[in-house]
Amino acid sequence: MMNKEEKLKKYNEWVFKQSAYNMALALINYDKLTVAPISGSDFREKRSAFLAGEAFSISTDKEIFKIIKELKDDESLDPATSKALKMYYKKINNLMCIPKEDYIAYYQLVSQSYNAWLEAKNKNDYKIFEPYLKEIIESQKKIYGYRDSKESIYNQMLDDYETGMKEEDYDKFFYSIKNRLIPFINKIIKAKNINDAFLYRSYDIDSQKLFMHELINYLNFDRSWGYLSESEHPYTTWMCENDCRTTTKYIKYNISAAILSTIHEVGHATYEHNISDEYDGMILSEGVSCGMHESQSRLFENYLGRSLAFWQNNFSKLKAYFPNELMDVEVEDFYRAINKSEISLIRTEADELTYPLHILIRYEIEKGLFNGSISTENLNETWNQKYEEYLGIKVENDREGILQDIHWSDGSFGYFPTYALGSAFAAQFMNKMRKDIDVDSLLRDGEFSIIVNWLKDNIHQYGALYDARDLIEKVSGHEFDVNEYIDYLIEKYTELYNLS
Amino acid sequence: MMNKEEKLKKYNEWVFKQSAYNMALALINYDKLTVAPISGSDFREKRSAFLAGEAFSISTDKEIFKIIKELKDDESLDPATSKALKMYYKKINNLMCIPKEDYIAYYQLVSQSYNAWLEAKNKNDYKIFEPYLKEIIESQKKIYGYRDSKESIYNQMLDDYETGMKEEDYDKFFYSIKNRLIPFINKIIKAKNINDAFLYRSYDIDSQKLFMHELINYLNFDRSWGYLSESEHPYTTWMCENDCRTTTKYIKYNISAAILSTIHEVGHATYEHNISDEYDGMILSEGVSCGMHESQSRLFENYLGRSLAFWQNNFSKLKAYFPNELMDVEVEDFYRAINKSEISLIRTEADELTYPLHILIRYEIEKGLFNGSISTENLNETWNQKYEEYLGIKVENDREGILQDIHWSDGSFGYFPTYALGSAFAAQFMNKMRKDIDVDSLLRDGEFSIIVNWLKDNIHQYGALYDARDLIEKVSGHEFDVNEYIDYLIEKYTELYNLS
Repeated sequence: MMNKEEKLKKYNEWVFKQSAYNMALALINYDKLTVAPISGSDFREKRSAFLAGEAFSISTDKEIFKIIKELKDDESLDPATSKALKMYYKKINNLMCIPKEDYIAYYQLVSQSYNAWLEAKNKNDYKIFEPYLKEIIESQKKIYGYRDSKESIYNQMLDDYETGMKEEDYDKFFYSIKNRLIPFINKIIKAKNINDAFLYRSYDIDSQKLFMHELINYLNFDRSWGYLSESEHPYTTWMCENDCRTTTKYIKYNISAAILSTIHEVGHATYEHNISDEYDGMILSEGVSCGMHESQSRLFENYLGRSLAFWQNNFSKLKAYFPNELMDVEVEDFYRAINKSEISLIRTEADELTYPLHILIRYEIEKGLFNGSISTENLNETWNQKYEEYLGIKVENDREGILQDIHWSDGSFGYFPTYALGSAFAAQFMNKMRKDIDVDSLLRDGEFSIIVNWLKDNIHQYGALYDARDLIEKVSGHEFDVNEYIDYLIEKYTELYNLS
Repeated sequence: MMNKEEKLKKYNEWVFKQSAYNMALALINYDKLTVAPISGSDFREKRSAFLAGEAFSISTDKEIFKIIKELKDDESLDPATSKALKMYYKKINNLMCIPKEDYIAYYQLVSQSYNAWLEAKNKNDYKIFEPYLKEIIESQKKIYGYRDSKESIYNQMLDDYETGMKEEDYDKFFYSIKNRLIPFINKIIKAKNINDAFLYRSYDIDSQKLFMHELINYLNFDRSWGYLSESEHPYTTWMCENDCRTTTKYIKYNISAAILSTIHEVGHATYEHNISDEYDGMILSEGVSCGMHESQSRLFENYLGRSLAFWQNNFSKLKAYFPNELMDVEVEDFYRAINKSEISLIRTEADELTYPLHILIRYEIEKGLFNGSISTENLNETWNQKYEEYLGIKVENDREGILQDIHWSDGSFGYFPTYALGSAFAAQFMNKMRKDIDVDSLLRDGEFSIIVNWLKDNIHQYGALYDARDLIEKVSGHEFDVNEYIDYLIEKYTELYNLS
């Protein structure tokens, strides 16, 4: 029999070992997305799959699972260790119940499904993807079915991405959005248009990069612990609090794309950087909920990066790089242009106001797919009907319709809702932050570090120590309320469009 | 009892497994040297050390060793498998004889020694490094002493870097260099100077980068299988034939530094790229000798990249990026400038002609350190005396003297000689190549691919299938002869300096 100290020693060694493999896999993936030569992908992928298998074997080690099971209820442990043990227990339990052959079969299916999705998107034909989507759903149902849970499959999936969030919670959430936002958006559509044509002039990419250096400097994104590179789809990854990588994508005929995606990703990176270094390499730093993470990136991008005060500091710097392109543009014009609301087909290009409706549509479809009320057959038509219903826009082809997002091809059902949830969490954080510090003055004065410190003290440092909604309550003093988000949107856009 | 097929299956699985860890470790190192944020190094290094330990355990697996031992003498196997088995056997045998505690102790010592070397170099004080150097040598003697070999320790080390090369071979090699090159260099010193001042004007780094894109295109270094990035010390690493990475370093007040280092590294990368893909991930691609690898990088850099014909194609492109800086410079001036010979203190900055003397000095010191005729005590003075004797130059401080190179800090004794050997191998290859194809016309016409194909067909494709000197004989039709190298140098510099 091991005593508690021996068990903790074993547990800590296992945490370290896991973190070594996770680091290698994260770096291999980062390399792939940023610089790796394409012809080497087959060689690399076979080997990284092998290492992922090694990591899986380590994660599901039976001796460790037993130790974690015993330790997790030990009330003498400190809260951080205790929370980590409970999270690991849940995670491993959900993995270990899956027969290895099902696990491998599922991952092979995901790889095929991704290729089918890519082909379907390229050929603009949902039918190519449909059988795979169907099989992915069946396969997910089977795999989740192994869990010892009373919850519906979709509730389990939702919980995986956002602990504690169930269909009934999201139903309420999206009900409010539908109820209050759709009528407001209809008013905005009829309002006078905002001119944003100048955003799409020709902007030299080298100059964009030089400005980006100034911008990340303003954001306190420091080269000693962070690095900005480029990839087809901007993203953020991290090894530890002192190694956070973000990417962006520069587009010549769009000055705001790289800027806003950089601010967004730096939000993710800053969160990770500020998590207590005691949690480095363990689940309290990896395991922050998707909604919480997204709340910080959206807080950076939308609540700070799309504010007038932010650009009152940064616009003159941008203009210095593009004196001709922005000659006739004032900071207020720029602010209005990057916030222009427009009904559109593509989620990732949607503005702040219409964005949650794109998520609403995906949520309703996911729910239907798992409760059986919606079938994968002709799902493109279901998709198109919902876009017409909620956004009043006609989807002309599958590529800009159901095939636009990668997420379903890899079985990530239950993930989309956290995107809207994150934006809403951010509203509640911002309301509290504005009570504590004068955000706009700080943005104008280039005192971004004070904002970052507020986030660190109130949110970031804890990592996954608290569940998202508990942390929101701890920070704001009251329960999560979607209306703070909706109020914020309505207020911002009423002013922006001069509605009364 | 396993049959042959079962053994080969186990062996191939082990090769694959090894290659997965090697790939992860190579990528982690590449990342560290190119983009990784510095503050994360402690976190990363602890984990990569752990993974290196895992790789070591796999390499020295006893069951596999037994299988390899049995298979290596099976004459029914194809030559490539057979050669690979013999190489693995030798490699593992040399590793397995080391007690694990000695292995770990040595690696800890190397890490401390590197730090001591860095500190000594910064403080310009050999005394700080001396005790570590002494311990590294003692430790290497101990570790090599475990091997069951009749050869001297230094001979074993030489063999590790260049199979089959012993002291007596290198003695003859360097004897010829001393005997024929030193008198010639003395003539060059007295000759009329070459003007190279224009190389050190101000060269905008962004423009250097744009030219470099054209240059690597000329060299057939293709983005689909290769990638050029930047690091403090230029180097090359590879995962497989279709994933070869090189780095360079741009210096504003030196137009030739990044260019020549890029051509050098692309030589290494091209070699790896052209090795038969059947050897991907196995020792026939990893295990090419240091001298062979260096022969290809030096062939690119010196024999091609510093030739007039090369620049007759590329100089106008360079000039287009630097019309003002190179206004008064003709291609012949540029060619002479990048070949200027000058007695200097720093090996890595030495010209083609004096370079082997820097290696000679290191070789004599290494030999003396291991046969006991030279001590680490006051080794800086020994160093300085040799620079005065062979190069007629006074070393003013340790930083530009004995502390300039990293190699001894990590115990790489026996490695330096392969640098000179590689240059000499290249001479013999070039003599044959010039008989087969019209190298200068091809360089002038931008037909670099024909040169690359010659190298691939004659040298690269084989990887480590043949030992270096066997391959030289196979290619040139006769034994390796250092005089081809010395003849080349004397001929080139006689013409360059208009000697008669």
